[in-house]
Amino acid sequence: MSTLDAVLNRIDQDIDASVERLFALLRIASISTDPAYKQQCRAAAEHVAADLRSLGFDTSLRPTEGHPVVVGKSNGAAGPRVLFYGHYDVQPVDPLNLWKTPPFEPRIETLPGGRKIIVARGACDDKGQAMTFIEACRAFKAVTGKVPLNITTMIEGEEECGSQHLFGFVRDNAAEFKLDLALVCDTAMWNAETPSVTTSLRGLVYEEVKVTCADRDLHSGLFGGAAQNPLRVLAKALGAMWDDNGRVTIPGFYDGVKELPPDIKADLKALNLTPEEFLGQVGLKVPAGEQGRMVLEQITTRPTAEINGLVGGYTGEGAKTVIPGQATAKVSFRLVGEQDPQKICDNFRAFVRARLPADCKVEFANFGLAPPLQLSFDNPALTKARMVLAEEWGHKAVAVGAGGSIPIVADFKTVLGMDSLLVGFALDDDRVHSPNEKFDLKCFHKGIRSWARILQALAE
Amino acid sequence: MSTLDAVLNRIDQDIDASVERLFALLRIASISTDPAYKQQCRAAAEHVAADLRSLGFDTSLRPTEGHPVVVGKSNGAAGPRVLFYGHYDVQPVDPLNLWKTPPFEPRIETLPGGRKIIVARGACDDKGQAMTFIEACRAFKAVTGKVPLNITTMIEGEEECGSQHLFGFVRDNAAEFKLDLALVCDTAMWNAETPSVTTSLRGLVYEEVKVTCADRDLHSGLFGGAAQNPLRVLAKALGAMWDDNGRVTIPGFYDGVKELPPDIKADLKALNLTPEEFLGQVGLKVPAGEQGRMVLEQITTRPTAEINGLVGGYTGEGAKTVIPGQATAKVSFRLVGEQDPQKICDNFRAFVRARLPADCKVEFANFGLAPPLQLSFDNPALTKARMVLAEEWGHKAVAVGAGGSIPIVADFKTVLGMDSLLVGFALDDDRVHSPNEKFDLKCFHKGIRSWARILQALAE
Repeated sequence: MSTLDAVLNRIDQDIDASVERLFALLRIASISTDPAYKQQCRAAAEHVAADLRSLGFDTSLRPTEGHPVVVGKSNGAAGPRVLFYGHYDVQPVDPLNLWKTPPFEPRIETLPGGRKIIVARGACDDKGQAMTFIEACRAFKAVTGKVPLNITTMIEGEEECGSQHLFGFVRDNAAEFKLDLALVCDTAMWNAETPSVTTSLRGLVYEEVKVTCADRDLHSGLFGGAAQNPLRVLAKALGAMWDDNGRVTIPGFYDGVKELPPDIKADLKALNLTPEEFLGQVGLKVPAGEQGRMVLEQITTRPTAEINGLVGGYTGEGAKTVIPGQATAKVSFRLVGEQDPQKICDNFRAFVRARLPADCKVEFANFGLAPPLQLSFDNPALTKARMVLAEEWGHKAVAVGAGGSIPIVADFKTVLGMDSLLVGFALDDDRVHSPNEKFDLKCFHKGIRSWARILQALAE
Repeated sequence: MSTLDAVLNRIDQDIDASVERLFALLRIASISTDPAYKQQCRAAAEHVAADLRSLGFDTSLRPTEGHPVVVGKSNGAAGPRVLFYGHYDVQPVDPLNLWKTPPFEPRIETLPGGRKIIVARGACDDKGQAMTFIEACRAFKAVTGKVPLNITTMIEGEEECGSQHLFGFVRDNAAEFKLDLALVCDTAMWNAETPSVTTSLRGLVYEEVKVTCADRDLHSGLFGGAAQNPLRVLAKALGAMWDDNGRVTIPGFYDGVKELPPDIKADLKALNLTPEEFLGQVGLKVPAGEQGRMVLEQITTRPTAEINGLVGGYTGEGAKTVIPGQATAKVSFRLVGEQDPQKICDNFRAFVRARLPADCKVEFANFGLAPPLQLSFDNPALTKARMVLAEEWGHKAVAVGAGGSIPIVADFKTVLGMDSLLVGFALDDDRVHSPNEKFDLKCFHKGIRSWARILQALAE
């Protein structure tokens, strides 16, 4: 029997104990955003640290101005040096009355049809997912006496409140954490049968635009026709950001946006995500993005422009014949490939200024400037991971993009110069951040087996 | 001495008594919008009625569901039958602390340079203006024993709260009030030297547009690119309402808009209202209306489109990456000439619908549909009034448009089929609706003389 088969056997035999260990962690109410739970956040960190120590990791709680980071190091192993990122903190539980059972009393529920789910706050996000990795390490330790490659853990306690102290922690300890590859277990599968690796995260530019015309609100009967109207200015300028094919018209906007490799695009096409399926859930059916692009491209691998908010003038009931002096919009851009956030920001501002009538003023404020992340499709770790995930799940593992950002992963790239391999086992119906959060037992179990396979593959 | 000269002499000799009579009316706190002043509104109506009775008018207080209308009839005179419209109610006085003297204790103040002003709430709007007409009648009565033409007065008590019961009153008594011409004294002079007749009032179409895309607010990371955004829809549709020359692009919008006669346009040009002078007072300088049009045209004799309000998505501090499910705009149009409000409304709705992506919904609500008013430039009454106003003031009387509407005047046209001659003596600095409202004594005095001249001219 190969080492891997022995490890996988061990995982299968030990699964009940693995669930019990996850339950022990789930019982700790580590709600990071609420100061009332500070001690329980620390208890969760100590619990994870003790667990890692039992696996031979040299472990410490590293202080931040917020909750501590659990850093463990499996010294002495050969192979590449990997950083495993996860988080021990969880979301608040409100509204509590919608939970069928108390959120910090984990339980197994068997659904009609026999599907078993682990129900608790954090069952999936991220305690259950993080434990898939730790349990895989435990199986290696039990079978071979050690983990198969050099692992450093960074399990933080503030992901659910914005990881605000982790950015400085990573920057201040860059030399320590700049390893060969980061492994992250906080994402989802394509569906219950199809494993996936998240190979891109869109970047973000978020701008506020304030246009001022007259120095006060005006009566539209007296001034209408002569006085410039900031809502007209914003409507004309922002309305011009898209052409009739849904393409963004800001000059240089698509610089650095690349076409997907044909095989990756064919994989995405084979997933056959229809507009009806994706948009139907929110009452829509016609994709609003670039014509000729699959909806899956539109939401993951293509850049976007959105007006997130706009307000000006009279917005109450009935009529008021006012020409407002000022109007404000929030505008954001999701970036992909090698789009440069600063350049997009500059070009957007120039685009608006070019459409500004002579005696109107515009002020901009920036609330976000994050680069897009793209794991190279020929990265060897990606190739290995997709191969062994397919072996575990019996379906080809897809390389998909995520529409949003995970800011700390962006910092792994920009601050540490390190790629991240994002593999996760969440499902769309896991009710993450909602009452009755769950994690499929099958996802937990096969997630552990998946990490065992990935660790072995990376070590070879 | 001609009759007119005798009447003008009488006015000059009687001016102190005229001011005293105006003061008596100004002392009545007839604030129509506040129910606490209901008795004082009635007292003002009775005061005016008694005054008209003393001039030989057959007078009665005609009840409405709100404050009464003072209807007086000078029976038996020859000449055209005219309806005189004015109002005895006034605006509230808040903020009271900004008044130098109590608002219902009228006084004469002499400004540096010797200019005398009457200070009180209603001094100008509209007690002072209405009394210019009544005092002219009084002078005729004193000199000739009667007024020179058949006059019916309609002096209402709800103008400052929207004339809401007057519309029904006019409709219900159309046969009684359908006379040859309405005379209205509630408008302004061009400036302190230049008399004017208001020959047009812009109409109004006021619409609310609500666009619904998704059935909830969406996360722009997850849905951005695929989900349609109602702010984008509104920005594109409403932003398309103007071309680069400031012309409204809605099909058929300019149907019924006519060019001014060359002589009228030359008069307006001679007034030399610069963009700096008009827009400078509110911090602007570049006219936003149709290029190639004088600013005075843009605000009075040309139609406009305005976005009066717009709201959707996140409008608080900082950033929220939301794609709103719904956004709402208020859009209004000022109409001139023979533009048809219903057609403008229909064409606007069609314009928006034509720009609506497939699975978005739009709902419209109408909050205003008033036709424009235009007194024919060759109306004989207008010609006579301009001639005698020039004689009184020593400057050519201009025929100007007003940017806003006076709804009851629109009803005189649409319900009674009667033109209105709008002559007023207010000045831009009269602080109408504001603390320390005033009326120049010269405007009051020469206003009385002006009406005497107009009545005589119309009678001939």
